[in-house]
Amino acid sequence: MNHYSSNLVENAVNELSRLPGIGRKTALRLALHLLKKDISVSDALGSAIVKMRNDIKFCKHCHNISDSEVCEICANPKRNGEIICVVEDIRDVMAIENTGQFNGLYHILGGIISPMDGIGPTDLHIESLVQRVETNRVKEVIMALSTTIEGDTTIFYVFKKLKKSGINFTTIARGISVGDEIEYADEVTLGRSIVNRLPYESSL
Amino acid sequence: MNHYSSNLVENAVNELSRLPGIGRKTALRLALHLLKKDISVSDALGSAIVKMRNDIKFCKHCHNISDSEVCEICANPKRNGEIICVVEDIRDVMAIENTGQFNGLYHILGGIISPMDGIGPTDLHIESLVQRVETNRVKEVIMALSTTIEGDTTIFYVFKKLKKSGINFTTIARGISVGDEIEYADEVTLGRSIVNRLPYESSL
Repeated sequence: MNHYSSNLVENAVNELSRLPGIGRKTALRLALHLLKKDISVSDALGSAIVKMRNDIKFCKHCHNISDSEVCEICANPKRNGEIICVVEDIRDVMAIENTGQFNGLYHILGGIISPMDGIGPTDLHIESLVQRVETNRVKEVIMALSTTIEGDTTIFYVFKKLKKSGINFTTIARGISVGDEIEYADEVTLGRSIVNRLPYESSL
Repeated sequence: MNHYSSNLVENAVNELSRLPGIGRKTALRLALHLLKKDISVSDALGSAIVKMRNDIKFCKHCHNISDSEVCEICANPKRNGEIICVVEDIRDVMAIENTGQFNGLYHILGGIISPMDGIGPTDLHIESLVQRVETNRVKEVIMALSTTIEGDTTIFYVFKKLKKSGINFTTIARGISVGDEIEYADEVTLGRSIVNRLPYESSL
C-alpha cells in the first residue's frame, strides 16, 4: 500500500507502524479509526503520549518509573526497606505488586545480561544495587528474574557482587504452577520442585 | 493490572487501549516501548496523530480523505470522470488503486446499510452519489462492495435510486480467485463463476 490520498495520514501511519507489533496495515486501521472518532480522542491520545515521555521520571533509588524523584513504593514508609526484590523491568514490579504478597522495595535492573544482544553488566543498574545494599540496612535481596540462561547468568553475577556484604541472597521459588497437572509439567520444573520440596505444614 | 507507578503512564495506557485491537497489556507494552526510546519518537508520534485528525479534510466530491478540499484523484484531469466506482471505505480505494486497473473516479459511502448496527441509507453518502450522477456526465457506476447480505442490500438500494438515470450499473466480477484451486472453492462462488463464464478470448 503506497497511496494514502493524504500526506497527513501517511505520516501518522509511518509513526504508528514504528511501534512494536504494529505493521503498516494495522497502523492504517488505527489511523482510519481515529479519523472516524471525534477530534478530542486524537488530541487526548497524542498529548498523553507526548506528556508521558516528556514528564516521566525514574526513581533515583530503584529506577522504577515515577511522576516524582522518588517513586511511590520507595517513598512509602510502610514498606520494608530491609528486603529488596530485584527484577528485570517495570512490568515485573506490576506483576509482583498485583500478588499483594510482597511488602519490601524493588530494584529494576533494566534488562538481563545477554551477550547475544550486546547487553553486559555495565548496561544494567547493578552498581547502584550494590551501593544500595552497602549504604542501607538491607537484610535480604530476592532475585526475581526469568529462568533462562541469561536470567541465571545475571543472578550469578549479582550474587558474586553481593557475596561479601553478608546479606541473605534468595531467588523466587520454582515449581509446578498452581492449577497445573503434574503429568504435563516439564521435567526440569518437576525435578526442581521435588528437590526443593517443602514441609507440608509450612504451606498451610 | 492497576498499579502503574505513574499517573502519566496510566493515562497513556488508558488512551492507547481505546484503540481497536489494543488491550491494556498491549497498551502498556507500547507505553514502555516509548519510554525506552528517545523523546523525539514520542513527540513525532503524538504530533502526527493530533495533526492528522485536526487538519484532515474529506473530498467534497467523493468523500475520500484528502489534504485539500478536492482529493488528488478527483482533481486529476487524466482520470475518467464518466466512470464512478462506489466503495465502502477508504481502504477499498487504496486496494483498487494498487491494482492499477481503474482510471475512473471513486465514491466512498462511508459504510454499508446494516440495520443490525443501526446504519441506514441516510447515514451513508448515497444522496451525494445520486447528485453526482445527475449533475455530471457519468456513464457507468461500478459497485465494489463486499458480498455480504449488507453489501447486496446496499447495492440493491443504490440500484433503485439510480435506475431512472439510465446509466450503466455494474458490480465487480465474483469468481474463483487467481491462484485458487477449484476443488477448494466454495459452492456459491464456483456456481456464480460458471453462470458468469466469459468468452476465453476476452481474457487474453
